[in-house]
Parts: sequence; structure tokens; C-alpha cells
Amino acid sequence: MNVEFINPFLSALLNVTATMASLQLTPGKPKLKTDHYAKGDVSGLMGMVGPQTRGSMSITFEQGLILEIMQKMLGENPGEINEEVSDLVGELTNMVTGGAKKLLSEKGYEFDMATPAVVSGPGHTISHKANGKKIIVPFASPYGTAYIEICFESA
Amino acid sequence: MNVEFINPFLSALLNVTATMASLQLTPGKPKLKTDHYAKGDVSGLMGMVGPQTRGSMSITFEQGLILEIMQKMLGENPGEINEEVSDLVGELTNMVTGGAKKLLSEKGYEFDMATPAVVSGPGHTISHKANGKKIIVPFASPYGTAYIEICFESA
Repeated sequence: MNVEFINPFLSALLNVTATMASLQLTPGKPKLKTDHYAKGDVSGLMGMVGPQTRGSMSITFEQGLILEIMQKMLGENPGEINEEVSDLVGELTNMVTGGAKKLLSEKGYEFDMATPAVVSGPGHTISHKANGKKIIVPFASPYGTAYIEICFESA
Repeated sequence: MNVEFINPFLSALLNVTATMASLQLTPGKPKLKTDHYAKGDVSGLMGMVGPQTRGSMSITFEQGLILEIMQKMLGENPGEINEEVSDLVGELTNMVTGGAKKLLSEKGYEFDMATPAVVSGPGHTISHKANGKKIIVPFASPYGTAYIEICFESA
């Protein structure tokens, strides 16, 4: 898995949070996930299947950040991760994967998206099990951190 | 989504735990997931994409049950959910989805599997976001409960 495959996901997340929530996230350095773990409070996961590759992607949010995104997008802050926040994370996961799919398609990489699943639980971690390198990228904000994790393997 | 689509996943989980861990789980009644939530300590998730359908599946284990399965399959019990337990849950998720895929293929339903992701965190919940009915099925054992959750939508 090369950088050409990762960058569209990072661009898509920055684009979605900037346009939908007027929020500029600050991307950190992509890291190979060996002992780097992203802990967060709510995560959206998406499976992807293409002719030559398959994999999974997750976006993990700390509670403070996703509540701020909800406030900026929908004008309400429930103060906790409830069903509406979970639905929002599912939508964001769809938007980011869809945006990356479009960018990758322009470069000749094609894949189909499964449907998102959202995990809620304080301080959970996610481990992607594809037989490929796992890349993790942090995104900083004054309200908390988000992490994108991606792993692809040859189909 | 009809029962014909669900049952192969249930059969596959019963078959995998019986053959791999000599453990007979007792399936409960399938329920539409409206306000039914499965809380567990470690979950395997899988995205699926077919010509006419796409969706996601999760298997959630309470800690006591997955540690007993690990003990019976590998002869060791780490006493907590560590990297080895996470890998085992990823393998079980692959086996159950692969088993269901085979059974469904025999009935003319085809789908491709993405790769599994495993969530670790005490008492987390999972919400599948496909636009279809969500089905949840509990599996009881003396060591704790497992839950399968499935949701498919038309592609």
C-alpha cells in the first residue's frame, strides 16, 4: 500500500470537516501502526472491496471533537455520544470514504464500499487485520484528536 | 433481508466454535435491533459487497467467553484482551463470514468480503448503518454471551 492510496482519505477528511463543520483539522505525520494505538470514544468503520485489493478504514474521534463537529454541523451538542452522534459518525465515514473513492477512481484505482458500522465506547481501540501495512494518521484540533487508520491487502 | 440470509451466519458461528473450540453455544431468538444493544468487550467486524447487496456483520464477545474460546483453541488464557485475543477474534470473524459466504453461494447469493477489523474496549456497542433491518442474535454459554449483528441493504 503506497502513499498514493492513503492521501485521498486524508484529503477527504480535511475537506469534509472544513466544508461541513467549518473546522480545520491539523494532520500529523502518517505512521506505520506497530505499537501506535488510536484510543477514542466513537469510531466509524468501513470495509472496501476492489478487483485487486480489499481492506478496511476507520475514523476514530475523541468525544470533545465529535461533539464540536456536531455543534458546528447541526447546531446542537448533546454532551455525550448518543444515537444522533453515532449516526453523524456513520455519515462522516460514508462521506470520507466516498470522497477518497472518487479521488482514487480518477487515478485508476477502483473499489466498492460496504456500509459503515459505528463503535461507541470510551477509550476503545481498533485493530485492522488485513495482511498489509497499517497506516495511522492523527488529526489535531483544539477540541480533541481524530485518527484515520487504513489497511489494504492484495485480493 | 430475509432469514435465508441470516441463518448461514448463525450456523457458521455455531460450527466454528463447536469444531475449533469444542464449545456448544446456545443461540437465542433473532431480534430486530431497535433498542436492543449488544454490549461486549471485543468485537470483530466485516464489510461485505455483492452485486445486489452490501452490508456489515459483527460478532461481539464478552471477555469471559472469548478467553474460554482462546483457552480451548490455543491452550492459553492471557486473563485479559490482548493482541493475541484480538488476532483470534479477527480469525474467527474471517472463518464465520467465510463459512456463511460458502453456504449463501450454494443458494445463489454472492458477496465479496472486505478484511476484518477488531474493536477492543470494555462495554462498547456497535451500530450498523446500512439502510436495512438490523438483526441481532445472542448466543449464550456458561462463560458469557456472544452476539451476531447483521445488516444488509440493496446496492
